[in-house]
Amino acid sequence: MLHFFSPNKQLVSQLEHILGFTPDHLPYYQLALMHRSKIEELAQNNERLEFLGDAMLGAIVAEYLFKKYPTQPEGYLTEMRSRIVRRETLNNVALRMGLHKMVQYNQNDRGLSRSHIFGNALEALIGAVYLDKGFVKTRQFILNQMIRPYIDIENIENTDTNYKNKLLSWAQRGSHMLTFDTLDEKMEGSRKLFTIGIVLDGELVASGTGYNKKEAGQVAAQKALEQLNIS
Amino acid sequence: MLHFFSPNKQLVSQLEHILGFTPDHLPYYQLALMHRSKIEELAQNNERLEFLGDAMLGAIVAEYLFKKYPTQPEGYLTEMRSRIVRRETLNNVALRMGLHKMVQYNQNDRGLSRSHIFGNALEALIGAVYLDKGFVKTRQFILNQMIRPYIDIENIENTDTNYKNKLLSWAQRGSHMLTFDTLDEKMEGSRKLFTIGIVLDGELVASGTGYNKKEAGQVAAQKALEQLNIS
Repeated sequence: MLHFFSPNKQLVSQLEHILGFTPDHLPYYQLALMHRSKIEELAQNNERLEFLGDAMLGAIVAEYLFKKYPTQPEGYLTEMRSRIVRRETLNNVALRMGLHKMVQYNQNDRGLSRSHIFGNALEALIGAVYLDKGFVKTRQFILNQMIRPYIDIENIENTDTNYKNKLLSWAQRGSHMLTFDTLDEKMEGSRKLFTIGIVLDGELVASGTGYNKKEAGQVAAQKALEQLNIS
Repeated sequence: MLHFFSPNKQLVSQLEHILGFTPDHLPYYQLALMHRSKIEELAQNNERLEFLGDAMLGAIVAEYLFKKYPTQPEGYLTEMRSRIVRRETLNNVALRMGLHKMVQYNQNDRGLSRSHIFGNALEALIGAVYLDKGFVKTRQFILNQMIRPYIDIENIENTDTNYKNKLLSWAQRGSHMLTFDTLDEKMEGSRKLFTIGIVLDGELVASGTGYNKKEAGQVAAQKALEQLNIS
């Protein structure tokens, strides 16, 4: 009965809820939840596990996208993956999973709340799952417990065209003249590389480069939005 | 007997030699060996598979390094991985495997030989192995057929200190005054970030940033070597 009251019992139950399975080797998970602000010692915080988990996440998301989008080019898959695994997205998923209640960190350090310690701990957790259970379970965890419930792929997908549309509708509202001009087309190895410039009221405000005009236009539009402080 | 003379028979035998096992689904491998200079059509060249293979390689090398260097920090693992999976290294491995004899590409395009199409095909081949055989076999292939025979980890590891040493011995040979100066130390989140400058005969020639002075010094030394055209 003592075992029932152990603090590990609570951790195991929280982990089961998040992971969708029962962990075998608890120390991996305890390490994954330990931020360096609490323990500076390398062997006792989650930074190495974060490296491992980040790599596994990248591979599993790559496979997910490869299969989900059988007709999209490599550039599209790369861009989608970087949006899914970016710090903001992961931190948000970690918060919705409730990971912030489990991570051990120095709560007096005000700077930490703005960093992405929960998203980083989520990556470390993926590393822990890999060490504890192997690739297949890690893949299951990422697909079933992270991506499907918490990541809105369609929304992430549509962000793409939004930069250009956002900029155009801003220009229209303010009665600005806005054009997308092709500034350059050159060969890079065996591929064509395009540079698109955004000209606002006769002045070049930003430019972007890509393997097709659409991509280059998006990059340029995103930069122009930043440049002009449009959010 | 007809089967004996089929061109696939030769491909299977070449693949067996490279992979260390017999492929099941040959079309994956044929796709992996098809460069876009030969077939532009997305569904018929190896660019998508390269994306998948690159991701799997990154994850498997991450795990390999995580276990090989149990006491090294995350920054060290990241740096080592980027050296192992960089285009030059992979292209070299691909050539030594003999992959250049199997890749289908436009041999009239002179620009291609300078790009890294064989290294890229090797990544695509990793993607093919993953689709055909799953993660465990992919891991075996990378560890046993790529890393162990063709990648000199100790040499890659030692490249690190070489930048600084190389620069120092160059300075000594030419009787130059060379110093490594700490230009800046600041907090980035909860970590300290160092900037080291390289001063040659009283003039700042390069600077580098890192989470410790050694790392920052290496980055700075590498830049200085480039700046000064020392090879």
